[in-house]
Amino acid sequence: MTNTRERFHIPDGLIYLDGNSLGMLPKHVPARVQTTITEQWGERLIRGWNDGWSELPYQVGAKIAKLIGAKANEVIACDSTSINVYKMLLAAIKMRPDRRVIVSEIGNFPTDLYMAEGIANLLGGYELRFVEKQDLTNAIREDVAVVMLTEVDYKTGERLNMAAITKLAHDHGALCLWDLSHSAGAFPIELNNCNADFAVGCGYKYLNGGPGASAFVFVAERHQHDAVPALSGWLGHNAPFAFSPHYEAGPGMTRMIVGTPVVLSLVALNAALEIFEDTTMQELRQQSLALTDEFIKLTEPLREKYGFELLTPLAHEQRGSQVSLSSDNGYAIVQALIAANVIGDFRAPNIMRFGFTPLYLTLDDVRQAVQRFENIMSSQEYKKPEFQVRKAIT
Amino acid sequence: MTNTRERFHIPDGLIYLDGNSLGMLPKHVPARVQTTITEQWGERLIRGWNDGWSELPYQVGAKIAKLIGAKANEVIACDSTSINVYKMLLAAIKMRPDRRVIVSEIGNFPTDLYMAEGIANLLGGYELRFVEKQDLTNAIREDVAVVMLTEVDYKTGERLNMAAITKLAHDHGALCLWDLSHSAGAFPIELNNCNADFAVGCGYKYLNGGPGASAFVFVAERHQHDAVPALSGWLGHNAPFAFSPHYEAGPGMTRMIVGTPVVLSLVALNAALEIFEDTTMQELRQQSLALTDEFIKLTEPLREKYGFELLTPLAHEQRGSQVSLSSDNGYAIVQALIAANVIGDFRAPNIMRFGFTPLYLTLDDVRQAVQRFENIMSSQEYKKPEFQVRKAIT
Repeated sequence: MTNTRERFHIPDGLIYLDGNSLGMLPKHVPARVQTTITEQWGERLIRGWNDGWSELPYQVGAKIAKLIGAKANEVIACDSTSINVYKMLLAAIKMRPDRRVIVSEIGNFPTDLYMAEGIANLLGGYELRFVEKQDLTNAIREDVAVVMLTEVDYKTGERLNMAAITKLAHDHGALCLWDLSHSAGAFPIELNNCNADFAVGCGYKYLNGGPGASAFVFVAERHQHDAVPALSGWLGHNAPFAFSPHYEAGPGMTRMIVGTPVVLSLVALNAALEIFEDTTMQELRQQSLALTDEFIKLTEPLREKYGFELLTPLAHEQRGSQVSLSSDNGYAIVQALIAANVIGDFRAPNIMRFGFTPLYLTLDDVRQAVQRFENIMSSQEYKKPEFQVRKAIT
Repeated sequence: MTNTRERFHIPDGLIYLDGNSLGMLPKHVPARVQTTITEQWGERLIRGWNDGWSELPYQVGAKIAKLIGAKANEVIACDSTSINVYKMLLAAIKMRPDRRVIVSEIGNFPTDLYMAEGIANLLGGYELRFVEKQDLTNAIREDVAVVMLTEVDYKTGERLNMAAITKLAHDHGALCLWDLSHSAGAFPIELNNCNADFAVGCGYKYLNGGPGASAFVFVAERHQHDAVPALSGWLGHNAPFAFSPHYEAGPGMTRMIVGTPVVLSLVALNAALEIFEDTTMQELRQQSLALTDEFIKLTEPLREKYGFELLTPLAHEQRGSQVSLSSDNGYAIVQALIAANVIGDFRAPNIMRFGFTPLYLTLDDVRQAVQRFENIMSSQEYKKPEFQVRKAIT
């Protein structure tokens, strides 16, 4: 394993099992952002756009493409994941004008469902067929326009079979939109080998782009002509600086850009992505599985003693890069762990999530984390009143 | 006049007349962003959201509210101007369900028109009544759902009468959406005194938030219950961390947040806005008019000698904070000016734009700029071949 850990700033004593919410800070990012601010914005001002800012969405997209089994011209960085879901979902349903059903999983990350709900309310006449995971196969029928799924469940860490579901969707004439928020940067993804149509994903989790980093969009090359964004912004225009009063979609992924790119955030993400050049997604997957296997093994006694349920599948092919345990005391336990410098997070109603970013975590981190976990449980530390108070973001 | 100029980094010898495209760098911004990256992201990691990141859209919104005649709870910073136009326009037309006409001006900034076009294509049955400025009064009739206008014309710098047009729209039962991209931070705006319904604006022009800074949205308090965004994202939800599968719009401006706020950009904008606390919009307006008056006066011989047309109105109440001149040689002249360290910009087909940000420009800047302009014209410097080559962003 290449030592990519040393490229991150790791606060003393901290074991950070929350890279699935916000990735750690790469050491070289502060200087890059600083240069962008002082030398580019400060000195070059508007000329910064001609000096390279305009290329950032494409550059970042090309780097992400390598991690997700896509071609460089199939991915672009822009906007938030939510807005990209909206963009892609609308473009996709318009490509299946005779169908009126959007399939998803009821446990999908809420923003994906909300965006579909917003579109259905707006257009009218659409059925939102949101079902349990086990009912997906049955839900994908000839009336479905789009199947929209998140590859890795944000609550349980369960990974869906992208190849099989995409094929099932295609066999029924539907298009497939994958949310890779909990996949990209965590393990190898093979969008084109799976024949995927559309994908979106997050820049601030396993890609370490910083808080609120730009998200990304993938459109398979074969769909790039037909997929037209309803969010038809000027920088997605075929000739933005002609300032025509009528929209004409730009070539390829250009049309998926809406407004002005968020330069500072894109620069941070662009720099963070360089770390992936030191390793391979295969190597990272090996490390990720070693970490989650170890955590699952070492927490077995805790699970038995305190009645935690393991929500994450044991089968490697069904696992992302996180492990989730459920407990009625989950919220307080997570707070006590954070106080003991082991950061995981809590998801309602009772889920303790532990994310394992293979770029910077070691087996020793896992062992220490479980040791502290055991101490918190045996000392009943988590029962202290201060750990019961709910915070805004948990 | 308070010396707000000293709060900006001003490169040696540069006269920057392009703050209407990208504002200059405030000196204190680099350190603020750096602290956010190293101390918050680096050390606090996910806890940064509870430490204050979540409040940024509201904090920035409240600061902008003071500049535009709105209440603190009526403005929020989020997304890009384009996306905010889409959000507001859709919310507005849904509040006038029996009407099917969107009025705008054909010379409005293209992204506003494109967003309306995207919505009209999506929903079907809408008329886009895009007319010349002088035909606006006639276009605003009883069938109009929304009048969408940019207060200051990005090409000519002409300012519309917000109070009169808003009243005209209301008299005909229509709602009014104002784009303040070339107004906010440039002169006093009185949204509530004008009885405005909705507004959007840009964070990186006169507000100096940096390249791609977050934009903002205003919704008059009286409409906040009825205005529901079609871009229904999880952070606009009434209880985002309940992770309900169904969307329920959050209170007030919260619902206008879609995805995760772009922290680095918001921090830069939040810091930049502090400079407005050193002055008043009235004081800035006075300075802005002094600057544009002086530029208009001093360029009169140039306009006569070289046949440039003054596109900006002479009447103060019809003027924003820029002056535009047209010339068939406009592109080359602007390039030659940039080479002479006077940065303005060019807009097709023949417009030379000069923006005057009152926060950091002086009358001496204007005099020096015109002096260099005269030199370029009398020496025919602009005829050099290198100034004819078109760049991507001009």
